[in-house]
Formats: sequence, structure tokens, C-alpha cells
Amino acid sequence: MKYADSGVNIDAAARALARAKDDVRSTWDHRVKSDVGAFGGLYQPALGEPYLVASVDGVGTKVMVAVQAGRFDTVGQDLVNHCVDDILVQGAEPLFFLDYFATGTLSEDVLPEVLSGFARACRENGCALLGGETAEMPGVYAPGEFDLAGTIVGRVRPEHVIDGSAIRPGDRIWGLPSTGLHTNGYSLARKVLLDKAGLALDAEPEGLGCSVADALLAVHKSYLDDLRDVWKTHGRESVHGLAHITGGGFYDNVPRVIPEGVCAVIDTTAWEVPPLFRLIGALGGVETAEMYRVFNMGMGLCVVTPPAIDLAAMELGAVLIGEITAGDQKVDVRLPA
Amino acid sequence: MKYADSGVNIDAAARALARAKDDVRSTWDHRVKSDVGAFGGLYQPALGEPYLVASVDGVGTKVMVAVQAGRFDTVGQDLVNHCVDDILVQGAEPLFFLDYFATGTLSEDVLPEVLSGFARACRENGCALLGGETAEMPGVYAPGEFDLAGTIVGRVRPEHVIDGSAIRPGDRIWGLPSTGLHTNGYSLARKVLLDKAGLALDAEPEGLGCSVADALLAVHKSYLDDLRDVWKTHGRESVHGLAHITGGGFYDNVPRVIPEGVCAVIDTTAWEVPPLFRLIGALGGVETAEMYRVFNMGMGLCVVTPPAIDLAAMELGAVLIGEITAGDQKVDVRLPA
Repeated sequence: MKYADSGVNIDAAARALARAKDDVRSTWDHRVKSDVGAFGGLYQPALGEPYLVASVDGVGTKVMVAVQAGRFDTVGQDLVNHCVDDILVQGAEPLFFLDYFATGTLSEDVLPEVLSGFARACRENGCALLGGETAEMPGVYAPGEFDLAGTIVGRVRPEHVIDGSAIRPGDRIWGLPSTGLHTNGYSLARKVLLDKAGLALDAEPEGLGCSVADALLAVHKSYLDDLRDVWKTHGRESVHGLAHITGGGFYDNVPRVIPEGVCAVIDTTAWEVPPLFRLIGALGGVETAEMYRVFNMGMGLCVVTPPAIDLAAMELGAVLIGEITAGDQKVDVRLPA
Repeated sequence: MKYADSGVNIDAAARALARAKDDVRSTWDHRVKSDVGAFGGLYQPALGEPYLVASVDGVGTKVMVAVQAGRFDTVGQDLVNHCVDDILVQGAEPLFFLDYFATGTLSEDVLPEVLSGFARACRENGCALLGGETAEMPGVYAPGEFDLAGTIVGRVRPEHVIDGSAIRPGDRIWGLPSTGLHTNGYSLARKVLLDKAGLALDAEPEGLGCSVADALLAVHKSYLDDLRDVWKTHGRESVHGLAHITGGGFYDNVPRVIPEGVCAVIDTTAWEVPPLFRLIGALGGVETAEMYRVFNMGMGLCVVTPPAIDLAAMELGAVLIGEITAGDQKVDVRLPA
């Protein structure tokens, strides 16, 4: 199986967005400091001020798993943490978050649970839940379903922006462990586990170590505290690049921070792929390259450091997963034989 | 008919949100300068800095009219202008906007059209389209449907924040004309016009002066230029309060800016209700009070000024629609006999 078989066509979205790029850029002036395709948009309200960094996201069809499991307090956490990570990779710390909750027919019980998840993750990240919108749209949403979107705004001093431009051949690439699928690849994961293999959400397949629901609903990790530790221990200049492994896996996300003339070589044998990913690959007959294109495969954040920095010596669970070489390829994901 | 008959229950949403208020406030520190229920959230990143003002919104089931009419370039404009107005009423001018577009199965033709609407309105409001997210979620959205959410961030100097605290008995209330329903009450409007009365979108009912589609898809007006004119002509202190007439009509939106001890008396006979609203009221048998609770009835923004200010002398189409009196009622909507 491939991701496109689950009804999601990454390429179609990319083509449509490519057509709209000039339209988007036509709204920009000198205050916009990032280009299309950055994890978060950079904006400097006035000369000499810190940059605001903003990003919007959803949790994809992870919401459908939440609905099916009747567990509504985790998806809000997923979304906040996802957004925190999206601006963290540019060096920013969060200021505030706004949520959008939309459904066909409002359940008075679901909404407060979802909001409690937003609030919990906002507290954990020191980020204000500054606003929100609740929309009831009969006919737009399938019965019982809902969707979430969230926008985060953070900021970073111009000299602390991480854009990968400091990356040099010889730099090390570290992986920080994910807690699960985070918020990506759920259409394929659901199709394989729930439809094709017919697993119940409360089933505990051998080797998984927990129920399917627990594995699928594991909360997206915020790497904010980890990065604060790294900056405190080794200084801001110890981080040359950060990639949040989300939609598009290693193939689409790593190149977003790799400058021209260098290549990120990822050795996928450097870490053990967690059981959930192995289960999806096996039950779905998904090709290995496709797995690394769709999922984070156990590593939710890539950190590029100078060769002298040893993140494995810190208590982050960091694994050395690759290095930067000279080359024009941007990323070379070396798959297991 | 009532709004609740269209499947939308404003009260249920209000109850659910009331339950979540403490959770939301638990994420705040001294940097949050607004309370739950403000049109936009106010945030001061550091002492002495301007306030950031942020708001998130959708366009409700206006998207379903767009889908039915096959016209995709206007809803993005609706959303940007709606968001601009939501922070304008606190005195803020926009900096940037981020969009979220989600659908079941992506149409490569729809997305660029929607984005062109976002871009156009962003250019018109001098606001950068800083980021966006496109989500393809088979199963969550009904076939062919999509949803939009948008977040705007603007800013305002602390001394220019408009929160209604300057409002005094004797102040005048001006209405600025809307272009149509803006983005509110579409579930009821669709139910009445399309379902109950069975009108086709290309029908031109007597007195409407255009097709049903043209009337329903008229773009939400941004009042940014109007307010800039007022501030330039009469100074910042000439505006004591602003209310964006959106979900909840006059009854829910006007009280949001009225301080304790005064009452906004709205004389609804002061202006002629546009044909579209009269048609919905007549064909739906909707009670007059319910109409003013759901729709803007032709006035999209209320501006409260000191008695000496005459907005009718400016070229804004402003109509004197009421005055501030002493009283505990916050709003008194005087309906036609």
C-alpha cells in the first residue's frame, strides 16, 4: 500500500500550492522574513524588533481515531505541541495559541474535553490560549466527526533564527525520539490497522505493548524543553538546523533546512523502529521507502549540530542518526538492506 | 422558524464554552490583557511594547453556498475581512493572516481559487498572508465540502485600545452598512431560501435586484479604511466603542463593548433593512427579534462616538441608529411595531 491509496494525495496538494505561490508572495512586504515552505512564517513588525514566528496546523485524521475511541482530551494537546515544534525549529519560543473547533452538530461534552487538552498543553509549554472559535456546520462535516485547527505565534531574536544556513559538511544529525505517529500518516495507519487488518481499537497486537487506541492516540511530543536544555548546555550556536518530521516524513522535511551544496545522510539502521511503525509496515505491505516518506519512524525531530557537540550525553534520548556531507542531494535516506 | 431549527444551537455552544472558561484562563499570565469573550485576544509580549491582537474565525456554512454555486474566490476574502474587523473593533490594524483549508478529497482547482481570495483580501488590507495549512481528510468532511479557518494577528498601542470603557450616556451609536449577511446566519438563510422556499441559486426573486447566489456570496466588508478615515478626521479619541455585528447579531455583540451602568438603545427604524434580510424573514416566517439576533440586518459595524461627532457628514454611509443611555440593560433593541 501507498499513502495515496488511503485517499490522501500529497503530490496534488503540492501542485495546487505551487500554483498559488506567487499569489501568496504578492501579499508580502519587507516585514516578511521567510519564504513559502518554511515550518513557520517569520515577520518583523518594525526594524530592530524580534521576529514573530507563526504557524497553523491541524491534526489530520487523528481526530477520527479520537472520535472512534471516545477519547477527546488528547487531540488538543497534539495540536498545541505540533505547533510549538513547528516554530521551535526556527528557534522561536511560543507566546500564544488560538484554536478552531468545527463540527456538524455540537456535543456539549466533547468541546470542553477538547478545550481541556488545548489548555493543558498550553500550560505545559508556557503559552497562552488566547482565543478560539467554535463552529457548528451541519452538512459540511460527516455525522459525529469534528475538525481542529490551531495557530501559534511565538518569537525569536533575529540573531537566534535557525534556518540551516550554518550547516556544514561534517555536522552531526541527531534524532530525538517521537512518542508515536505524532500527527502524521493517520489516513494510511487507520486504513492498514483498522480497515485492512480489521484490528479493534482495544486490541493489543503482539509486540505493541499496549492497545491500538493507546498507540495511535499517544500525544505528539513538544521538544521545547529538550531544546531549551540544549541551548542552556551548549549555547544557541550549537544548533545549526532543526527539522520537525511531520507530513512528508524524512524526504520532505529534512531538505527544508538543508542549504545548497550539502546533503543530510540519514542512517536508518542507527535506531530501532518502534513496534507501531513495524506493525503498520508489515500489515499494510507498505514499502520501506514509503514508510520513511509518510511517518517519523520513531524520530520526531532532527537536530543538526557541529561535530563537537554530543547530545547523547544529555538525558534527551538523542541518537546519532546521520551526518552532513558535501553533495547536491539535500537528503539521502539510507534504508535497511 | 428559529436559528436552532437550522441545526445550529448558539446556546449549547455558549454553555460548553462557559464550562471551559477556567481552563482557558489557567493558561494566562500577566501578558494577556483581555478576558474571555473579547472580539480579539490582547497580548503584550513585554512591558512597554504594543499589544498584539489575535483572532480566529471561519465563514460558517457560507462555504456550502460557494460549493453549490461553484464560486471559490470569494470565501477567502470573507474570512480575511471578517478577521480584520474582529481585531479592528479593539483598535488594532492587521499585520498578518494564516489560513487553514481542509477537505475530504482535494480538488487541485478549488484550492488555488480559494487562496487567491485570501491573497486578494490580504493585499487590500495591507496584511501579509504569512502561512497556511492544507489538509485532506477523507471521512471527516462530507463529499465535495470543505472548510476554512483563518487567524489574524495585528497590533495596537496600549493607549489606543478600544474596549468601550470610554462610553458615556449621551454618546451616539452609528451603523456602518454591511454588504449582505457577511459571514453569519447562513445555516438559517440556506434553510429558508434554498430548502423551504426552494429557490435556485440563479433565481432572481422580485425586489432582490440580483441572483440569490450573488446576494448570498456578497463579500464581507472590511471596515479598516472607514475607521482609518474616522481616526484621521476626528482623532483616535472620537471612537468610544466598536461592535462587529457577527454571530449573535445585535443582542450578543453590542453588549460585548458596553460597560456597566449604561445601555445601548438601538432604533431599528432608523435604517431600511436590505431586501435579502426582508426576503429571509418573510419566506421563513422568522420573528423580527430572532432576525436581529441572528443577522446584521444591514449594519455590519456599530460605532459609538461622543455626541459632537457626526459620522453622517463623512462618506461612509454611516447612519445614526441609536444612543447610549443610563441603565443596566447593556442593549435595548427597539424593534419596528
